[in-house]
Amino acid sequence: MLKRIEVLFKKVRNVNPLVHHITNSVTINDCANITLAIGGSPVMASSVNEAADMAKIAHALVINLGTLNADSCEAMILAGKAANSANIPVILDPVGAGATAYRIEMAEKILQEVKMSIIRGNASEIYSLIGGQSQTKGVDSGMVSLSGADLAVKAAVELNSTIVVSGRTDAISNGETTVIVNNGDPLLTKVTGTGCMATSLIGSFAGVTDQMLDAAVAGISVMSIAGELTKSKLLEGEGTGTFRVKLVDTISLMNGEIWMKEVQINEYATR
Amino acid sequence: MLKRIEVLFKKVRNVNPLVHHITNSVTINDCANITLAIGGSPVMASSVNEAADMAKIAHALVINLGTLNADSCEAMILAGKAANSANIPVILDPVGAGATAYRIEMAEKILQEVKMSIIRGNASEIYSLIGGQSQTKGVDSGMVSLSGADLAVKAAVELNSTIVVSGRTDAISNGETTVIVNNGDPLLTKVTGTGCMATSLIGSFAGVTDQMLDAAVAGISVMSIAGELTKSKLLEGEGTGTFRVKLVDTISLMNGEIWMKEVQINEYATR
Amino acid sequence: MLKRIEVLFKKVRNVNPLVHHITNSVTINDCANITLAIGGSPVMASSVNEAADMAKIAHALVINLGTLNADSCEAMILAGKAANSANIPVILDPVGAGATAYRIEMAEKILQEVKMSIIRGNASEIYSLIGGQSQTKGVDSGMVSLSGADLAVKAAVELNSTIVVSGRTDAISNGETTVIVNNGDPLLTKVTGTGCMATSLIGSFAGVTDQMLDAAVAGISVMSIAGELTKSKLLEGEGTGTFRVKLVDTISLMNGEIWMKEVQINEYATR
Repeated sequence: MLKRIEVLFKKVRNVNPLVHHITNSVTINDCANITLAIGGSPVMASSVNEAADMAKIAHALVINLGTLNADSCEAMILAGKAANSANIPVILDPVGAGATAYRIEMAEKILQEVKMSIIRGNASEIYSLIGGQSQTKGVDSGMVSLSGADLAVKAAVELNSTIVVSGRTDAISNGETTVIVNNGDPLLTKVTGTGCMATSLIGSFAGVTDQMLDAAVAGISVMSIAGELTKSKLLEGEGTGTFRVKLVDTISLMNGEIWMKEVQINEYATR
Repeated sequence: MLKRIEVLFKKVRNVNPLVHHITNSVTINDCANITLAIGGSPVMASSVNEAADMAKIAHALVINLGTLNADSCEAMILAGKAANSANIPVILDPVGAGATAYRIEMAEKILQEVKMSIIRGNASEIYSLIGGQSQTKGVDSGMVSLSGADLAVKAAVELNSTIVVSGRTDAISNGETTVIVNNGDPLLTKVTGTGCMATSLIGSFAGVTDQMLDAAVAGISVMSIAGELTKSKLLEGEGTGTFRVKLVDTISLMNGEIWMKEVQINEYATR
Repeated sequence: MLKRIEVLFKKVRNVNPLVHHITNSVTINDCANITLAIGGSPVMASSVNEAADMAKIAHALVINLGTLNADSCEAMILAGKAANSANIPVILDPVGAGATAYRIEMAEKILQEVKMSIIRGNASEIYSLIGGQSQTKGVDSGMVSLSGADLAVKAAVELNSTIVVSGRTDAISNGETTVIVNNGDPLLTKVTGTGCMATSLIGSFAGVTDQMLDAAVAGISVMSIAGELTKSKLLEGEGTGTFRVKLVDTISLMNGEIWMKEVQINEYATR
């Protein structure tokens, strides 16, 4: 897996995959810039009148529920179905799933209508997608009774998708193989959108490989490694503003060589 | 008051109050990041289907009229009423109030339906809420015939709320007590969203104290002090882009000790 | 032309023209900050209930199709007609025109209803406005069979507007006079919104001069020059995050003297 992922960095910068986003209004700019930083070409078209047409010409579709409403939900389903028909991978970021009854209902509706290749969320969000009740507080993760790895495996089986549970360590599973990424830094939780951006990175990699587990591991580990490297570059007097800017720097300069040197992964068979 | 505010910095970073925003699309990311920087936990949910549910679980609700439309106005009223019922403080930022007939009408409608704990705006905006006509130019402040302090007192009485009139100096009043903050820097007007972010800071403090005057003074003075400190850190060749980034740095590193050292406040009884 | 443009920098910082934007949700914050950086006063009001009222009090109106939907399209037409009636210049940024059938249809509808003073896009976008079919990929430029200069002239005549075709070099034409700007840097394509921001700069200059060709050349050349200067300031280890921040710095510090020293322009009569 390491060797396969290492070459994806060049591939994403050569192909410049078109990553169509229907995403939230808080971090939409961050998602576009991080997609560019890794080598993708972002496009954000959320009108019901064109979401499906744009999805058809994309290499990957990212659906993010952060500021969901009735219109965007309809656009997500239209685009998701179009992507499914065209065999274009769809990546879901269920931001705040479980926080309100509406979000649970909409997430379930979208999952019924659209086949997801990859789903990335924090433990609370993933847990709520499989019917679990956690102490969610807004869009931040609450307490969940399962470990990240167990949750990823369980959700992968129940939702028939590759699952990324991000957190202090990240757990990725397709049900058969599970990967733990031991990179990351707590500062990543002090900037909005690092989760959304990780999903955009996953989408960018999913646009250039058929191996969804590889794409998921690549995307989430790039964000976690970048958190570590960027933290180590911060100078006296620099806070979360500079951290956010240098995080983009780090990802724009990331390549297979740096990634191989920094990544700390455990991979094991789940069944 | 100084001693009471000094301890709020630790409190906001321990409690991580959930600050629900229904805000504008221009500065929504800035509002989220500044809330994180001071220690709050931002959530932005503006769909009419969940705005009230999210408000109920929040520590404070921030309503910002910057890019108001019919849908968001409805969501604001639903969320505001839910917050009022649950005794959760509601903070209003009447961006551009007075600039168009529609904004005046919507601001009045929201004020009729929702009890505001704190209202923060520039002089033009606050003046328009009490029926005054100033030479507003878009979202920037025009000329108003009252001093900031007189305006804050008058508006506090008429609107039955704690009022923050921000400007070269900031005036805060609940009608009985008035506070002048003599911090600030003109560069704060050359970056969009410093007003909106100040309101998010006020919301974060309002989530951890019952003293609305304290929360209002704390939030606005943090922004004004951060403007001064950040300006003094700018290097040759750095402009408004770097100022904006370092402003977030400064606020993420702000604490009670720094605040006590820098704040320049006059407090007096108004009646 | 050089001498006329040189004095516009002081003029825009003295007048602080109110630049009304109805723009996309991806780069709306960038557009506001870049307008402030050059000296303008941005306002973003896209509700159909106030778009026209806000346009009437503005010095220029910028319409950007990046995340177009039915509502914003209606607001654009209302605001555009109000601006036309009041002789306020309207600047169009047809982001992604040609990428979907919906965007072509909406762009045509807006062009039928509103007289544009200036239109800025990449070659694919401008080409699609005059009925050309290029290999558009999302919002990035595809291949077009005409040179930028020929395309600018042709589109200026057919659309009866001043046209800016931005790219490796920028071509600006009103049909009679054509200008080539030989500044720029490829890094400008690795940050989202540099095109949108260039359009906001054009809008800011259009708010302080009647010469639309001057405003168009000034705005696009400021972005291209800033790209060069900012690239040259990047340090080892800095990537697209820092580039984006320093780009705003460069523009906030730009003045007539710097511009005169850096600009590389060819101007010639087209007919």
